[in-house]
Amino acid sequence: MTKTIAYGVDVQFGDCDPAGIVFFPNYSRWMDAASHHYFTACGLPPWRAMTDLPGCIGAPLLEIHTRFHTAASYGERIGIHTSVEEWRGKVFIQTHRVMRGDTLICEGRETRALCVKEDSGKLKAVVVPEFIRTACA
Amino acid sequence: MTKTIAYGVDVQFGDCDPAGIVFFPNYSRWMDAASHHYFTACGLPPWRAMTDLPGCIGAPLLEIHTRFHTAASYGERIGIHTSVEEWRGKVFIQTHRVMRGDTLICEGRETRALCVKEDSGKLKAVVVPEFIRTACA
Amino acid sequence: MTKTIAYGVDVQFGDCDPAGIVFFPNYSRWMDAASHHYFTACGLPPWRAMTDLPGCIGAPLLEIHTRFHTAASYGERIGIHTSVEEWRGKVFIQTHRVMRGDTLICEGRETRALCVKEDSGKLKAVVVPEFIRTACA
Amino acid sequence: MTKTIAYGVDVQFGDCDPAGIVFFPNYSRWMDAASHHYFTACGLPPWRAMTDLPGCIGAPLLEIHTRFHTAASYGERIGIHTSVEEWRGKVFIQTHRVMRGDTLICEGRETRALCVKEDSGKLKAVVVPEFIRTACA
Repeated sequence: MTKTIAYGVDVQFGDCDPAGIVFFPNYSRWMDAASHHYFTACGLPPWRAMTDLPGCIGAPLLEIHTRFHTAASYGERIGIHTSVEEWRGKVFIQTHRVMRGDTLICEGRETRALCVKEDSGKLKAVVVPEFIRTACA
Repeated sequence: MTKTIAYGVDVQFGDCDPAGIVFFPNYSRWMDAASHHYFTACGLPPWRAMTDLPGCIGAPLLEIHTRFHTAASYGERIGIHTSVEEWRGKVFIQTHRVMRGDTLICEGRETRALCVKEDSGKLKAVVVPEFIRTACA
Repeated sequence: MTKTIAYGVDVQFGDCDPAGIVFFPNYSRWMDAASHHYFTACGLPPWRAMTDLPGCIGAPLLEIHTRFHTAASYGERIGIHTSVEEWRGKVFIQTHRVMRGDTLICEGRETRALCVKEDSGKLKAVVVPEFIRTACA
Repeated sequence: MTKTIAYGVDVQFGDCDPAGIVFFPNYSRWMDAASHHYFTACGLPPWRAMTDLPGCIGAPLLEIHTRFHTAASYGERIGIHTSVEEWRGKVFIQTHRVMRGDTLICEGRETRALCVKEDSGKLKAVVVPEFIRTACA
């Protein structure tokens, strides 16, 4: 298992729908922010500045799976607890648990492929390098 | 199986990220729009106006699962092809295939629970009534 | 005066806030879409494909000014009526009237500068070429 | 003049457009969050919990005016510096200066009307009470 890193979000009025609760695509938005935050919090440079992996453009999504347990609303502080569940060659599974205190709001599981842009302009998935896995360990 | 209904989206500049492609939470946003559109296109009133199901507040999500096959960008027209895969008591599975012409961009599977607000103010899941299933058939 | 072009929007549940009305930044989002739509509806290519203006990256905003008259909600169809109020050298003023039938919801006035990317990578504002102004007339 | 309160934002990848810079409606979204944050940071309860002003629903916008000076991008930390420029009966002017360090990114000026919901369900603008102005002084 890797480190778990928390990313905090203050839920805003404008994040909520007419039912007064978070409009669910915002959770995907926050999980994406938490994914970026995770690697920099582990001490890595941002994807676009990762000189040890030239041409790196980040880790686009192949798949997301989210389960919603209860609702959150504005004025609340939530924490997104992120880790990497599995390194699988060119692909990795990142998981996010969205908590309000001890309450699990929702949980997401993202499948991402680490990609570089080749000289031709094409994207190519690459095996996650050892230095990235070590930083997250 | 139910009807399949298409909902069209013109992808905008502002829907895209620094990689020049649709930022993925927008797909969730469009699938939610397609979900609402589906039932009205089947001839049903909007959830909040569904007098045959008093107190109906709609069908909140329990779970989403999306697989991304290729990217879309601004200036493109995409269609979201929506149907109900299964009625399962108080819960139903709605699927969305996002197409650009013949190309499958991504596909989503949503698990939703049909809910009414009780006099106490609490939400309660209810069995999907026959008139809704008939309208979609 | 230029042509006026309408851009239609079906207001979605997720565009609305806990007060049940459109969360106002969405109007800016739709006005931006209407701005792009305006020029292509006038017969021009999209900014990034405008070969008669090499390096064109579009017309970034210098200023926006929006007045809100009444609210809109989901399930409603609104139209954004866009024109160019003034060509002013490298800058132009684009106006948007957001209507629901005969009701004026809000009106926006955007100041934009037409820009190209120079070989050095720097952005430079350029005088709006005659062929653009003619297409909109 | 009133207090000035800062609200911090970490700009995310998904907040940026294909030009790699913040898509401008996000500034409106952040200024709205900063507006809410301002009053609670001044020691007031959230609008919906303001028992000293029964029925308060907040302060909807009448007008916004934003000037953009330079761009911001993801990975950057920006601060939104908010104050109330003027109390004008039922209306007040709130200003936001968006800064990255010493650099002014953009500045917004919002005209808002303080509103309560009457028993009939209608909204009514009310004079900003003394206790609110005192809290912000």
